[in-house]
Amino acid sequence: MNFRVIGLVLGILLIIESVFMLFGLPFSYYYQDADIIPIFFSSGITFVAGLLMFFLNKKASRSVGKRESYVIVGFGWIVLSIFGTLPFILSGAIPSFTDAFFETMSGFSTTGASILNDIEALPHGVLFWRSLTQWIGGMGIIVLSIAILPLIKVGGMQMFAAEVPGPTTDKLHPKIKYTAQKLWFIYLGFTAVETLLLKLGGMNLFDAINHSLTTMATGGYSTKQASVAYYSSPFIQYVIIFFMFMAGVNFSLSYFAITGKPKKMFKNSEFRHYTGIVLIATVLIALGLIFRNNLGVEKAFRDALFQVVSIVTTTGFATTDYLQWQPSSLWILLFMLMFIGGSAGSTGGGIKVVRIQLLFKNALLELRRLIHPNAVIPVRYNNQAVPPQIITNILAFVMFYLIIYFTSVFIMSLMGLDLDTALGAVAASIGNIGPGIGKVGPADNFAFIHPAGKYFLSFLMLIGRLELFTVIILFSPQFWRK
Amino acid sequence: MNFRVIGLVLGILLIIESVFMLFGLPFSYYYQDADIIPIFFSSGITFVAGLLMFFLNKKASRSVGKRESYVIVGFGWIVLSIFGTLPFILSGAIPSFTDAFFETMSGFSTTGASILNDIEALPHGVLFWRSLTQWIGGMGIIVLSIAILPLIKVGGMQMFAAEVPGPTTDKLHPKIKYTAQKLWFIYLGFTAVETLLLKLGGMNLFDAINHSLTTMATGGYSTKQASVAYYSSPFIQYVIIFFMFMAGVNFSLSYFAITGKPKKMFKNSEFRHYTGIVLIATVLIALGLIFRNNLGVEKAFRDALFQVVSIVTTTGFATTDYLQWQPSSLWILLFMLMFIGGSAGSTGGGIKVVRIQLLFKNALLELRRLIHPNAVIPVRYNNQAVPPQIITNILAFVMFYLIIYFTSVFIMSLMGLDLDTALGAVAASIGNIGPGIGKVGPADNFAFIHPAGKYFLSFLMLIGRLELFTVIILFSPQFWRK
Repeated sequence: MNFRVIGLVLGILLIIESVFMLFGLPFSYYYQDADIIPIFFSSGITFVAGLLMFFLNKKASRSVGKRESYVIVGFGWIVLSIFGTLPFILSGAIPSFTDAFFETMSGFSTTGASILNDIEALPHGVLFWRSLTQWIGGMGIIVLSIAILPLIKVGGMQMFAAEVPGPTTDKLHPKIKYTAQKLWFIYLGFTAVETLLLKLGGMNLFDAINHSLTTMATGGYSTKQASVAYYSSPFIQYVIIFFMFMAGVNFSLSYFAITGKPKKMFKNSEFRHYTGIVLIATVLIALGLIFRNNLGVEKAFRDALFQVVSIVTTTGFATTDYLQWQPSSLWILLFMLMFIGGSAGSTGGGIKVVRIQLLFKNALLELRRLIHPNAVIPVRYNNQAVPPQIITNILAFVMFYLIIYFTSVFIMSLMGLDLDTALGAVAASIGNIGPGIGKVGPADNFAFIHPAGKYFLSFLMLIGRLELFTVIILFSPQFWRK
Repeated sequence: MNFRVIGLVLGILLIIESVFMLFGLPFSYYYQDADIIPIFFSSGITFVAGLLMFFLNKKASRSVGKRESYVIVGFGWIVLSIFGTLPFILSGAIPSFTDAFFETMSGFSTTGASILNDIEALPHGVLFWRSLTQWIGGMGIIVLSIAILPLIKVGGMQMFAAEVPGPTTDKLHPKIKYTAQKLWFIYLGFTAVETLLLKLGGMNLFDAINHSLTTMATGGYSTKQASVAYYSSPFIQYVIIFFMFMAGVNFSLSYFAITGKPKKMFKNSEFRHYTGIVLIATVLIALGLIFRNNLGVEKAFRDALFQVVSIVTTTGFATTDYLQWQPSSLWILLFMLMFIGGSAGSTGGGIKVVRIQLLFKNALLELRRLIHPNAVIPVRYNNQAVPPQIITNILAFVMFYLIIYFTSVFIMSLMGLDLDTALGAVAASIGNIGPGIGKVGPADNFAFIHPAGKYFLSFLMLIGRLELFTVIILFSPQFWRK
């Protein structure tokens, strides 16, 4: 293990982080908030720490192998979260380190679960940093899921990486940097366009930027305690729905669509299923809202669509408290959607549509295999046969997801959570969603949870965000041997 | 499809059922109950119906193929349940057909979920028939899971069928009849010994026989409304614990143990894991009962062991209302055990220990595969490499289990059940357990559920009992084609 190069990369990440921390300062200045000095200090400490790590390891050999990438990815998110707490702590916005760490990890992992009881009370620079952690996390995830994970074959991701065209070939360009630039261009572009539209819809610039940052990251941090419910404008809500939906699509497909190949998107099997799931769930819930909750057609459709897209994409914004819907079947459906998640190669979390799709296909094919026991019947995806190793790989992913899920529900119940709350808090954390069910619904927050529970949920956010294996493998003795 | 031979076999099954119905008559006579005539009528109707089906199809070709076996197994359970309602309906014990069907299917599927509010009020002949449905169901399952399912390769069962020695070879004897006889000998023997011990422990003969019938079937129907909690004698409770535990073990292994090869049992990987799960869960819960519920050590251990064994084996007897335990983590653990179930080749339901074991192993191996991407690393079980087809087969099983589980929770919530009750009712039905959580806990029953919900849960019991595929395949258009 080349520890020095790991230190080097983490140092660079911290230096980048220290720069990002400053981005909220214009708002602090404009709104005359008292967080300017604390943010400067936070940035300074982070910068010096990064610089130290950089120079101490400057002479490291530049070879980053597979094992080093696992360590960098896993520890990168943790180190960024630790230093990311500084603006919260030094400004006094979140005095407790536990709470600040939870909030920051929830940010970088694009989860959006919060311990804040009065978001509007926070100074603007800190609030901006809070939103920015999600946007940075989303940026990291795009590269990770489209460029890095496929190379190290985590969770079958090599299957799902839609190809981004390089300058000369139609294959996935081997140069991560080039791929990343293309995708960040889309990410940045979407964020800018959403900001513009939200501003046009009547949001002030600060809120428009913040909501755009956290929409594209499928993060779901809002600058309002009431989340998007604060904005009753249907235009604003539809804009956010559209961009949440796009953030849950494989960014490579969006790249194709924007560069004149929209067919590649509409022919993609995962995209079609993702859209189908959203539509079916929306219609079911909208019908329930119309006939059982006496909502008007447009309002019912909008509320249903917003909540469905918000949950499927694992964003976690809310325009209504879905736990109040009658009958409870309506939110139970939402709860189940928490396990599906967005598309591979998007900023969405969860198990991902394509994995569920492949396992579902395999299950149906098993019936055919029983009828024709001697035929070899492989699973096909986007007109290609999927090798059985990929199926067992995805199987392993889902098994780990379930094992971790149920063990965690038990552990959280030991910390005093009732069954519904434990089911919801764990689903919302490992799926990087934010709000759950029970006492951590969209109208509540995570403040009341025991400190040990907050660290545990933070860990679940990390493990969910990094496609499980990337973190689990760090606990395998075999990984460290040799 | 050779429909006539199907009719023939179903006719024979009905004739056998009509004979079994009479077994409770001595008790009706002894206790001077009013159910003698209704039981005679029930048996007569069933006998005539069976005879008709037999003679109408007498000239059928005797070839029973794979497809015919699926239909016989699936419809056999349904037809037996329909006619099995007669003693309940004609005696007036359960006037509603819906309720009687639920109770009978719950019996034949060895589930043990009941709609009865006052079990002691039933006449003894009907009560005996109720227990006997479970014992017959258990008998059917042993043959099915050890002799038939492995042949038609359902759910990877071919892997788990521990071999029963034939007269000349150590392999699974191809003659189903011979294998079945050996296993029924064990089944009958265990039932007889348990009856004797319960009688010695102070039960009257009627209750002793009834509880033994439903213990060995992992059914869980009791002749007392309070279930086994009615008997405070630790001896009786330990006897029932022991036989529940044995009923959850592969009956082939018990056969070996009894015929002088106990090592085969203790070396069996599934047996060891099954025992391990029981012990760990018992210790965890017992500790909770001692330190948080102020129970004495022996009582805490006995309560924990009883409930854990009852749930893991999917029996469903209760000596205490586990939903009252504090903290709720204690029963949440039990709820999770509902998904594991007994061993393959036992009368227990659920996913089965061995399937979970193999999927767990595969998940852990995936970490090794990530570290050594070029090595072929198969899952090993009982010192043999498991072919990948078996893994995808089991994967399909678990996927269907989860898909059906979550869809059913949603459907039951549409019928007005709250989340906990829906989670519990579905887990208890598809897992063939009986009591669940929420409003269908061990102190409650299923009477309040909407009739549509009762039929739906009955269907889940069937599908769970028959290892999913056997029923699902009947819904596949491909199955009926050609």
